[in-house]
Amino acid sequence: MSEPMYDLVAIGNALVDVLAHASEEFVAEQDKAHGMKKGTMSLIDEPRAVQLYAAMDSGVESSGGSAGNTMAGFASFGGKGAYIGKVADDQLGEVYRHDMKAQGVSHETVPLAIGAPTGRCLILVTPDGQRTMNTFLGASVELGPDDIDANLVASAHITYLEGYLYDQEQAKQAFRKAGQIAHDAGHKVSLTLSDPFCVDRHRADFADLVEQHVDILFANEDEIKSLYEVDTFEQAAKIVAGKCEIAALTCSDKGSVIVTGDQFIEIPAQKADVIDTTGAGDQYAAGFLYGYTQEMDLRMCGALGTLAATEVIAHMGPRPEIKYADLIEKAKAA
Amino acid sequence: MSEPMYDLVAIGNALVDVLAHASEEFVAEQDKAHGMKKGTMSLIDEPRAVQLYAAMDSGVESSGGSAGNTMAGFASFGGKGAYIGKVADDQLGEVYRHDMKAQGVSHETVPLAIGAPTGRCLILVTPDGQRTMNTFLGASVELGPDDIDANLVASAHITYLEGYLYDQEQAKQAFRKAGQIAHDAGHKVSLTLSDPFCVDRHRADFADLVEQHVDILFANEDEIKSLYEVDTFEQAAKIVAGKCEIAALTCSDKGSVIVTGDQFIEIPAQKADVIDTTGAGDQYAAGFLYGYTQEMDLRMCGALGTLAATEVIAHMGPRPEIKYADLIEKAKAA
Repeated sequence: MSEPMYDLVAIGNALVDVLAHASEEFVAEQDKAHGMKKGTMSLIDEPRAVQLYAAMDSGVESSGGSAGNTMAGFASFGGKGAYIGKVADDQLGEVYRHDMKAQGVSHETVPLAIGAPTGRCLILVTPDGQRTMNTFLGASVELGPDDIDANLVASAHITYLEGYLYDQEQAKQAFRKAGQIAHDAGHKVSLTLSDPFCVDRHRADFADLVEQHVDILFANEDEIKSLYEVDTFEQAAKIVAGKCEIAALTCSDKGSVIVTGDQFIEIPAQKADVIDTTGAGDQYAAGFLYGYTQEMDLRMCGALGTLAATEVIAHMGPRPEIKYADLIEKAKAA
Repeated sequence: MSEPMYDLVAIGNALVDVLAHASEEFVAEQDKAHGMKKGTMSLIDEPRAVQLYAAMDSGVESSGGSAGNTMAGFASFGGKGAYIGKVADDQLGEVYRHDMKAQGVSHETVPLAIGAPTGRCLILVTPDGQRTMNTFLGASVELGPDDIDANLVASAHITYLEGYLYDQEQAKQAFRKAGQIAHDAGHKVSLTLSDPFCVDRHRADFADLVEQHVDILFANEDEIKSLYEVDTFEQAAKIVAGKCEIAALTCSDKGSVIVTGDQFIEIPAQKADVIDTTGAGDQYAAGFLYGYTQEMDLRMCGALGTLAATEVIAHMGPRPEIKYADLIEKAKAA
């Protein structure tokens, strides 16, 4: 077991977010006509992306993608991280790569030269701050096993994978390859379940993964209930206990629970003015994993996750607007 | 004189803004090495844009450009407007055109098919909320007299021009053509001086324009002082009085003054939490011109300008995050 070069390497769909305000009526109409489910992520194809974009309000573009957001937050705490995710060799891809680099995250995945454009996620933010995501994967579907740099993954303390990768066969293979390399190197594998509908699509696979291959699991209330097809969060939390080393389960404004084989650690939520919940789960994972890689106790890991999630929901956009490292300093001083 | 089809048509450089946080030290270093002046706009070429972008923090992209921002605000009040400005036929150009359409602004300028990419403005926002702009004009320099749709301009109640257009010979010709058409149709011409350094570059031309061709002038304190090369705002305001029908002069947190041949109307500032001053002047013009086209009195025009500017400086980005029409309703209800 070699000394890790990176604290964290994350693998995910590299997407540029297009955030726009939308009314409840607009989302309801889109649900009726196209099955867009409020608060969740739907996969859409390019013609539908063009159609939805044309119907949307003016937007703001920023780099996103679940695992990419987590890496940005992780680096904002001061963690040393790398990201594997595929953009195209186009303007939005350039923006994505710039932002990763600027955030201090290594991102060496070769951009797609020919074919699909950089993927994007059309995000509708309703007046209640909820976000409804519509993902056109674009170039990110071309992420495959060849994009997994074995040395990079083997050199990381934790390899973090997003459940969304399971939506594409090639990405799923990349996912499995990375998990294998990490474990062979004696390091940890972490997974986020991503979305309740994503869990629906891959329930058996995910349940097996959690039991056999995952050390640190992230899920929100809906996702963990969906995974075990139970009605209450408490039932789900009991089932997952001991299935993996750690499960960090978030319950939005009710806080989070960290579950191990023998502990249920409750972490209270912080008060927040919710503007846009995009990135909340991603930043919780960033804070938790930063604490974990710094060998903090689980309660502190949860507190850092909460700190990061609370910051990101107070503004539009899925990534920190301030340095999380400064937030820690402030919290220490207070 | 035909019945106006549009309340306002604006002509400007179509730019996508890239907004990023920056430290005072970073801006000071860039000033030393590249003459970047805090709080102003510098024109940069493509190699410098690439270099600066590489050095910048991660950003957020949104449609910008001074006159484009004004049109977005004008439409947000409920005004009927059109915009003339050139983007390229690329991803950022698509974003720009989408946003204009989504904001309810007609934008039929033919995109540039071959050559420069869509122009962008790299904006550094320092902790005090001040923005320092670095513009790579890209495709927007190709705006020329042929892009001025004579019927469109003749059909608008007011034609609004940004001073920045004077930085390029072709755009200057487009500017003059539009002004001539507007006046020939018996309609008004409005100008914003844009930036004190822009005034420096074109002082004699601007002074002549204001006296001979402009009906409604917008300028901030630094710009109007620079135009008449005087030391105090009061001196500048006295000189401009009567040179054009109306001069609306903004003095940031000290409010604004509307100057006519025989009146000095002081408009107080509203209290605001300044996050990012990008778009403040543009939105002041939007509110003022909306009031003017609705035949409100000058005091109310100034109040609407203040309302819009106060909203836009309270968040990142140069365009409204809420409908200004709703803000008016709220103000009426209060």
